[in-house]
Amino acid sequence: MLELRFWPDITAVQRTFSQISGDNYVDIASLRGAHPDHWKKACAIRTLTLDAVAAANSGHSGMPMGMADVATVLYEKHLKFDASAPNWPDRDRFILSAGHGSMLLYALLHLTGYADMTLEEIKNFRQLGAKTAGHPEYGHASGIETTTGPLGQGIANSVGFAIAEELQRAKFGKKLVDHYTYVIAGDGCLMEGVSQEAIGLAGKHELGRLVVFWDNNNITIDGTVDLADKTDQVQRFKASGWHVQEIDGHDPEAIDLAIEKAKKTRRPSMIACKTHIALGSSAQDTSKGHGALTSEELIRDTKAAYGWSYGPFEIPADVKSAWEEIGARGATERTEWEERFAAASAGRQREFERIMAGEVPKKLSATVKALKKQMTETSPKVATRKASEMALEVINPIMGETFGGSADLTGSNNTLTSDLGVFSPDNRKGRYMYYGIREHGMAAAMNGLALHGGVKAYGGTFMCFTDYARGAMRLSALMGVPVTYVMTHDSIGLGEDGPTHQPVEHLAMLRATPNMNVIRPADAVETAEAWEVALGAKDAPSVLALSRQGLPTVRTEHTMRNEVARGAYVLSEAVAKRQAVLMATGSEVHIAMDAKALLEEDGIGTRVVSMPCWELFAQQDESYRRKVLPPGPVRVAVEAGVRFGWDQWLLGERGKPGKADFVGMDSFGASAPANVLYDHFGITAEAVAHKVRKLLS
Amino acid sequence: MLELRFWPDITAVQRTFSQISGDNYVDIASLRGAHPDHWKKACAIRTLTLDAVAAANSGHSGMPMGMADVATVLYEKHLKFDASAPNWPDRDRFILSAGHGSMLLYALLHLTGYADMTLEEIKNFRQLGAKTAGHPEYGHASGIETTTGPLGQGIANSVGFAIAEELQRAKFGKKLVDHYTYVIAGDGCLMEGVSQEAIGLAGKHELGRLVVFWDNNNITIDGTVDLADKTDQVQRFKASGWHVQEIDGHDPEAIDLAIEKAKKTRRPSMIACKTHIALGSSAQDTSKGHGALTSEELIRDTKAAYGWSYGPFEIPADVKSAWEEIGARGATERTEWEERFAAASAGRQREFERIMAGEVPKKLSATVKALKKQMTETSPKVATRKASEMALEVINPIMGETFGGSADLTGSNNTLTSDLGVFSPDNRKGRYMYYGIREHGMAAAMNGLALHGGVKAYGGTFMCFTDYARGAMRLSALMGVPVTYVMTHDSIGLGEDGPTHQPVEHLAMLRATPNMNVIRPADAVETAEAWEVALGAKDAPSVLALSRQGLPTVRTEHTMRNEVARGAYVLSEAVAKRQAVLMATGSEVHIAMDAKALLEEDGIGTRVVSMPCWELFAQQDESYRRKVLPPGPVRVAVEAGVRFGWDQWLLGERGKPGKADFVGMDSFGASAPANVLYDHFGITAEAVAHKVRKLLS
Repeated sequence: MLELRFWPDITAVQRTFSQISGDNYVDIASLRGAHPDHWKKACAIRTLTLDAVAAANSGHSGMPMGMADVATVLYEKHLKFDASAPNWPDRDRFILSAGHGSMLLYALLHLTGYADMTLEEIKNFRQLGAKTAGHPEYGHASGIETTTGPLGQGIANSVGFAIAEELQRAKFGKKLVDHYTYVIAGDGCLMEGVSQEAIGLAGKHELGRLVVFWDNNNITIDGTVDLADKTDQVQRFKASGWHVQEIDGHDPEAIDLAIEKAKKTRRPSMIACKTHIALGSSAQDTSKGHGALTSEELIRDTKAAYGWSYGPFEIPADVKSAWEEIGARGATERTEWEERFAAASAGRQREFERIMAGEVPKKLSATVKALKKQMTETSPKVATRKASEMALEVINPIMGETFGGSADLTGSNNTLTSDLGVFSPDNRKGRYMYYGIREHGMAAAMNGLALHGGVKAYGGTFMCFTDYARGAMRLSALMGVPVTYVMTHDSIGLGEDGPTHQPVEHLAMLRATPNMNVIRPADAVETAEAWEVALGAKDAPSVLALSRQGLPTVRTEHTMRNEVARGAYVLSEAVAKRQAVLMATGSEVHIAMDAKALLEEDGIGTRVVSMPCWELFAQQDESYRRKVLPPGPVRVAVEAGVRFGWDQWLLGERGKPGKADFVGMDSFGASAPANVLYDHFGITAEAVAHKVRKLLS
Repeated sequence: MLELRFWPDITAVQRTFSQISGDNYVDIASLRGAHPDHWKKACAIRTLTLDAVAAANSGHSGMPMGMADVATVLYEKHLKFDASAPNWPDRDRFILSAGHGSMLLYALLHLTGYADMTLEEIKNFRQLGAKTAGHPEYGHASGIETTTGPLGQGIANSVGFAIAEELQRAKFGKKLVDHYTYVIAGDGCLMEGVSQEAIGLAGKHELGRLVVFWDNNNITIDGTVDLADKTDQVQRFKASGWHVQEIDGHDPEAIDLAIEKAKKTRRPSMIACKTHIALGSSAQDTSKGHGALTSEELIRDTKAAYGWSYGPFEIPADVKSAWEEIGARGATERTEWEERFAAASAGRQREFERIMAGEVPKKLSATVKALKKQMTETSPKVATRKASEMALEVINPIMGETFGGSADLTGSNNTLTSDLGVFSPDNRKGRYMYYGIREHGMAAAMNGLALHGGVKAYGGTFMCFTDYARGAMRLSALMGVPVTYVMTHDSIGLGEDGPTHQPVEHLAMLRATPNMNVIRPADAVETAEAWEVALGAKDAPSVLALSRQGLPTVRTEHTMRNEVARGAYVLSEAVAKRQAVLMATGSEVHIAMDAKALLEEDGIGTRVVSMPCWELFAQQDESYRRKVLPPGPVRVAVEAGVRFGWDQWLLGERGKPGKADFVGMDSFGASAPANVLYDHFGITAEAVAHKVRKLLS
């Protein structure tokens, strides 16, 4: 048993809270007295937070101080983990959705003995190069399961984590997969709309292995929650089928009991934890307490109230070793798991390891090649959204780890193939999700699916509604999570639904985002290649921009090489002396081909370059890029989107001003049949040919 | 009283529904018989929908067929409107949040006699140039209060409409402002997360003049709602403080009674209307019924079931005249209102008309000029977010129509000025809204505030979280709604919060969006000018990109002219012979100025061009643009964002490849103090000067 070394005068402690009245009064001394061992462990989190934030002169002190008790009980008694094996696949996942409270997580990782979370890292909180970024950044340190900070993302990711666990358990059995996903979410997470999407999904799918702690501290940055919201969160979660408990978030016994109950219910669980933000400080229960508490006096008084007599960043050896015991608590379970894993058949081991590593099966390449050959030979005129379905029809059967879905546009996105089955409480092997009209929740769940591992997630909506999903899509890119967004109806080619449904700026928006592969295939062959690229990606998400309208096959000669993987390539060389290079993507490539035909008739030799993925093209070496886009000829690009960004290829890469032009959109679209719109907005072979002639004249 | 002219064999009608069993059986004959007058009016909506969708071979038949009864009762008995004066300011607003059911609205407008919604327009449903776009487009026809289609937007707009009504009523009294906002929302609207943000806001603010009809038809595109959601919507709305009723959405008496009750409660009202999508057709209660019902047989049988013996687009005269009576029902109320308005003082009349027209007060210009002069003279080093507050401190007192807010970052966005007061159930004159952690809901509410009229809405968040608000921001641009987004912390200058909070691609994303003025002021003077531009805008939203970090005043000479209004201008001319032009925006302008100083020291004459708003610069004539960006000198742009889009100015407008370069970001940011990050990512005066020297060498 740990002993308290220091016990300051109670009266002085209570004086610290003299400004706190009524409901918010907390008798710190009695908290300390009631569970002294627990108290010291929790205070290690609290004081590391205070010290790190003070050193950085920046950060959020109050949340870790408020939720330290919940986190301590969770790590001490429930969370299945082994600090010495952070990536053990069957660990429980802990997600700090309220990411601004990052010091809570960093303190836990340091205290429990994660090797890379040294005290030095804690001391370098929020400094360049440290693993302890302002908000938890996936990949910076072990034990950070996802990047959080933008509110609501963590709780929405967690739905994906919990689905992935169900899928894996259904596939590999409880001996190999049997874990929980725990989340700490704050008022901010619950006010963000994406939380509703997550709550609805989790409730519908009875994700019983998901446990959300709501840090019910009644404080946001602007003040008390009731300035902006009076929602009864308990009733709200219940309305979506959750199991809900309400507890005192500073009572370790209540916390323990609630987690026990939450683990037993077959429904997702929300534990409303009444807590005091910035517990024990003069900023307790105030919005000031949400931010950085850096006053020396406040820190001194707060530590005194805690009965904590140690220096900055000092953790007494007994407390540290108690925490390290916790960090090692899961070692036995982990080794037992390893034994069970070793006892599995070699085939199952290989499959488990392959999909957890995100490796594609060897036969993917041959499968895609065969499909390409077939497409070249039959040269179908199909929409690329349909071509995408054709690709998935051959890929899904050989990749059991794919998990598809759509935000209520299954028949339009063509995302459901014949053998997937639908995920539900009754079918945990189902590999397709009806996400509902929840683009943001879908994208965030896909991030969670990928981060858990063992799942290749793809999901569809109309490309215009990337607007709704942006919050999560950016995090796919920032984290480098290889999910695939199947974005169909990618231009005015959508037709009659009109400008609200017609993307014009979205290709630019997505391309402007670092680390995101935006792939807009021209036909069924490029679509097959696009899927191979997307599924093979290890550290970047892919966006497939697919047409609603039928497109002719432009890749009429079979190549073994995946041309999409090079980003851009010469689709058709000039016949007459080369005077022009036409660049196009997706549904405009065949327009460029038609323009070429018109120009060649006039003796104007014209090359057509298909540019399905700018990001991959930019990664090629300069000589290849120059070979594809030679400096001499005039350049005209055609794309049914805005010009924004195209000057990189029209004028950069040795293009010449006055010798380049663009055919596309410079406004929002309109409501009319697709072919009418292409004419109306002047995106035609004639217009392209006309611009070339004008540049040459 | 109208008489039914045609009454087909009941057995035949019932046979149409033989496939419908159990709960979903509807006795159409008894519906017809119970309220024959109502039935015929509602069937006029239904049959116009069937005919228009069939003619377009595209659209959504089922929703108008399901909600025709609710809409008929609403328009006949409750909605305060006068079809001959569609813009009467005190009309009730009707918002079709389920915008795919656009034919419901078009039919209502046509039937009630809105002059511009002719039968010809109905016949041209979804055709180029028609007022009857696939989804309701604001500005296309009278009576379309907002653009809907992207789900959840309408219900979230409605919160803004209802707030605007409260504000105006508090200001002008019940004699001039006394109306309701009615919304039809579908399952899709309620699954979108933004609906939760709207529900929470409306509940908190007790928006009793807001009445939402939920089209509870249990069908989405993918199938029945329970494929994706089991949320108890009634409990969910109640949890946020709404008054909720559940009714049969095909019973005109129940609908009438429910609206009566909804109008009386002081809380926002949700009326759950149990309806049958595609009522009376063989596609009733199926997801097929959600889409375009174009089969001749289906249409014939459905009309037969309705007892409707007329040709396509034919409305019998008695039905049309009954509807036109409804359309004229509000004329008396309207003229009485006009009399009351005429009786108001001239000053009140002028103020009412000015703010409804969105005109700025005459003294705005002088106020901004005085502030600019003061800023030039005192040359403060302040963050532009702080400069924005300084501008608002002088503008808000002279513009009583401004309505500010923040998504829980009031102290960071600097959006609350001293005299605004906070909007709440107890203070309807409050001109500031604590929106909570709800960026999307805020943006959508701002659209509603502006569309209602009489309010100049602005709202703040961190610029990175435009990601969350994109769905509504795009609609601001599409509708041309002059709201102002106060987007602070606009770069890595945000510092320690790290990459999740640091925009790098967001300027590009916003600039790529048509009809959106993205303004990134360099100092306090440009910030004052930016506000004048934003508030004076009539048909485009503005995004103010503002710094977290302090910036020196670069506009050290007072000008009467608003330079921001020209988009870009020569901030500092070369001293030595001009060899370089530096372009910069916002927080990088002073870096360009420092680089210029370094270069001039070496005798390299350098012009600095401040480019706060590309869109406005692009609207200037070519001679001005060329004067600002002459073709000769090398060009280097510096901006703490991605290069994407910059080539338009670096290489276009007569710039030369090989003679232009960029200093900025090509990746996500990092967590560290701002100055450390600027050094780390090489966004420094030295780097800019180095690039210039390299280009010149």
